[in-house]
Amino acid sequence: MDSLRVGLVGFGTVGAGVAEILVNHKQRLAARSGKSIQLVRAAVRNPSKRESPLLQGVALSADGLDVARDPNVDVVLELIGGLEPARQIVRTALENGKHVVTANKALLCEHGEELFAAAKKAGRTIAFEAAVAGGVPIIHVLGQSMAANQITEIQAIINGTSNYILTEMFRNGASYGDAVRRAQEIGYAESDPSMDVQGTDAAQKLGLLTQLAYGTRVTPDRFLVQGIDTLELADLRYADMLGYAVKLVATAKLVAGRLEMHTQPTLVRKDDPLAKVEGANNVISLTGDILGETWFSGMGAGREATASAVVADVIDLAVGRAQLTFGHLDLWGNRPKFELQPAEEIVRRYYLRFNVEDKPHVMADLTDILGRNGISLSSVIQHESPEVEETSPGTTQTVPLVIMTHRTTEGRYRKAAAELDKLTCVRLPRVCLPVAG
Amino acid sequence: MDSLRVGLVGFGTVGAGVAEILVNHKQRLAARSGKSIQLVRAAVRNPSKRESPLLQGVALSADGLDVARDPNVDVVLELIGGLEPARQIVRTALENGKHVVTANKALLCEHGEELFAAAKKAGRTIAFEAAVAGGVPIIHVLGQSMAANQITEIQAIINGTSNYILTEMFRNGASYGDAVRRAQEIGYAESDPSMDVQGTDAAQKLGLLTQLAYGTRVTPDRFLVQGIDTLELADLRYADMLGYAVKLVATAKLVAGRLEMHTQPTLVRKDDPLAKVEGANNVISLTGDILGETWFSGMGAGREATASAVVADVIDLAVGRAQLTFGHLDLWGNRPKFELQPAEEIVRRYYLRFNVEDKPHVMADLTDILGRNGISLSSVIQHESPEVEETSPGTTQTVPLVIMTHRTTEGRYRKAAAELDKLTCVRLPRVCLPVAG
Repeated sequence: MDSLRVGLVGFGTVGAGVAEILVNHKQRLAARSGKSIQLVRAAVRNPSKRESPLLQGVALSADGLDVARDPNVDVVLELIGGLEPARQIVRTALENGKHVVTANKALLCEHGEELFAAAKKAGRTIAFEAAVAGGVPIIHVLGQSMAANQITEIQAIINGTSNYILTEMFRNGASYGDAVRRAQEIGYAESDPSMDVQGTDAAQKLGLLTQLAYGTRVTPDRFLVQGIDTLELADLRYADMLGYAVKLVATAKLVAGRLEMHTQPTLVRKDDPLAKVEGANNVISLTGDILGETWFSGMGAGREATASAVVADVIDLAVGRAQLTFGHLDLWGNRPKFELQPAEEIVRRYYLRFNVEDKPHVMADLTDILGRNGISLSSVIQHESPEVEETSPGTTQTVPLVIMTHRTTEGRYRKAAAELDKLTCVRLPRVCLPVAG
Repeated sequence: MDSLRVGLVGFGTVGAGVAEILVNHKQRLAARSGKSIQLVRAAVRNPSKRESPLLQGVALSADGLDVARDPNVDVVLELIGGLEPARQIVRTALENGKHVVTANKALLCEHGEELFAAAKKAGRTIAFEAAVAGGVPIIHVLGQSMAANQITEIQAIINGTSNYILTEMFRNGASYGDAVRRAQEIGYAESDPSMDVQGTDAAQKLGLLTQLAYGTRVTPDRFLVQGIDTLELADLRYADMLGYAVKLVATAKLVAGRLEMHTQPTLVRKDDPLAKVEGANNVISLTGDILGETWFSGMGAGREATASAVVADVIDLAVGRAQLTFGHLDLWGNRPKFELQPAEEIVRRYYLRFNVEDKPHVMADLTDILGRNGISLSSVIQHESPEVEETSPGTTQTVPLVIMTHRTTEGRYRKAAAELDKLTCVRLPRVCLPVAG
């Protein structure tokens, strides 16, 4: 039986998970790939981890470049994350005639064009199923299963950490801060959770999906990206009253031949499959021009889901399928690309929450501004203010005012918001969340 | 650019849908497959359909065997359904050196072993993504994406017609008969709906999935198959009260090294993703020993979903991927197969509904029989009987009695049921539905 020799760069959570599958399921992998898949080399930075029984008989070094240059290695698994030295390791591996499997969405989002071109030049393959939603084979689906279709819409919850935090807030009435701490305690959020909660991680993944589905490269700095870090429990409760759940939704859809993209906390109707995904799970909805809508859901990240996706790519390389897929992927613009729709022109409904002074004319002033900017209201929630027991003399009590608008453009809303900010009767926070659909 | 010449057998709903994609999206298919995909030959039985503009320039005949033997054809699409002459056409095509794409689950369920062997002998490929849940790329997922995993459980709603009927009954309070008529009116159910409503269609699909996931061929005559045709609206209502939805669920899971299989109307907890799938949609949940659980959902059948899956297979053949996958699929028992668990030994909870006479001791008699057979109760619903206004003298009024049991075996239930049938105070129908999980 032929063999496929694997070099592993990175022995963290995912790296160790991959090694475990490669070492403990040799027979299974051989039956499914037709090759003996052997872990022959690994770069492990932490000396204490080199003693792992999974690495017995494996040549070790501290530097990933050693693996990328090793003539005994056929496939390099880049599992260290981050931009450098990951970029250099992947380039070196390709230039040394090796295929690469990576779970690094940040790397592909930032340097994908360069690395895919290097792979093409070297006649080698980059496989990256694990880079987006490890538990959902979305890269396979976009590259193969939907091939008869032009994708017309992607709607996805692809940051498990944010979805866990939102679920925790809504289900247990936790504040944003408490929910983040809980996510950190159980290992869903890093000690610095900003990539997740600011929406960057989801936006990078959306960039990759967009490149596959639309042949168009769009980096997160070019579309609307907003995280869950400014949400309050109150917004989740009001949305619930109105029949919606709040989810961090990444969207890329064709509208009149242009690409509308955004990653934002979004109101999703409760009967929509996206609204029903709880905890750290991911869900991706794809609409094809022939097929209609299909949903995929599973664990987004974590050791097992990511390792399982990495090993599926290794098997695909052993079988030879990954090479064929990579050769036909629409990553180099061999079809008309789509222009990005300017954010100002995006048409949606909005959920707005204001803190307003509880006195006459406030509602009239506010709706006048919205109306003059062509924004009409579909519903309003303003509860009676509680009986004032103690207010300092001279202060005016504020009450929350929640408005759902009819469809309007982002540009109109921004213009109205600038005017609203000048009203003394409207206090911060001024919350604005788009509504899906 | 190389070309791939396609011969179409069958020009019904799906066949015409496939022709439409092949003819109207030539450029798209060429970009994604690297080949010019040409519809060169078709077998169309209905003479009036031969005038279709989609068939202009296509050599036509009435007999599918002509297509299977045509030396100008590289790939035969078998889209006529049924066992014969489909079997003969597929065999002939393979023996004449052509690849085959089929959407025919009945054919593969019945004659798959013979046909796969014939394909292997001829060095050709049978691709069949469209045979199970056209809108869900489940064959790809099982054959590729989950390759690092041993599947441990499949749970699926894979008969769109039945799910539509159940949704119609529950949402609109329709009787079973009215819901079937409604499904027929809008084209979801055939004039003879028995394959769908008796569970046969779902069981055949489960057989195919089982062969892929477990390397074990099991035909529907060897496991529990029960349709939705004996369900009453009352059962859906009682299940709802108890916190469950009733769905036609196809299950194949590993239990202590043996394969537990059944396709039955099943109580599914309302918060389970399976419970939330409505209308003609399909959902498939796969659990892998590494990955955990993943869900896939989309249109199960219909012209577009099936045609889209057929064309994805054609593209895979043009790229060469389908051939590699077929060569590695676990269809010929090159790994240990699993034994089927005898139905009597399957352990589940049950929902039971009886019509019982409204008189003393009935409950005691009934629970005594269950108890002596080792079946303990977890909950009971018995509403007060309505005030009797008019009953013929001498008749005793009956009232419904609903029982949820704790976990027990199918064998114990059957033994108890045989005893219950002898009680004069228990009248038909005696309903028994398993509970998932």
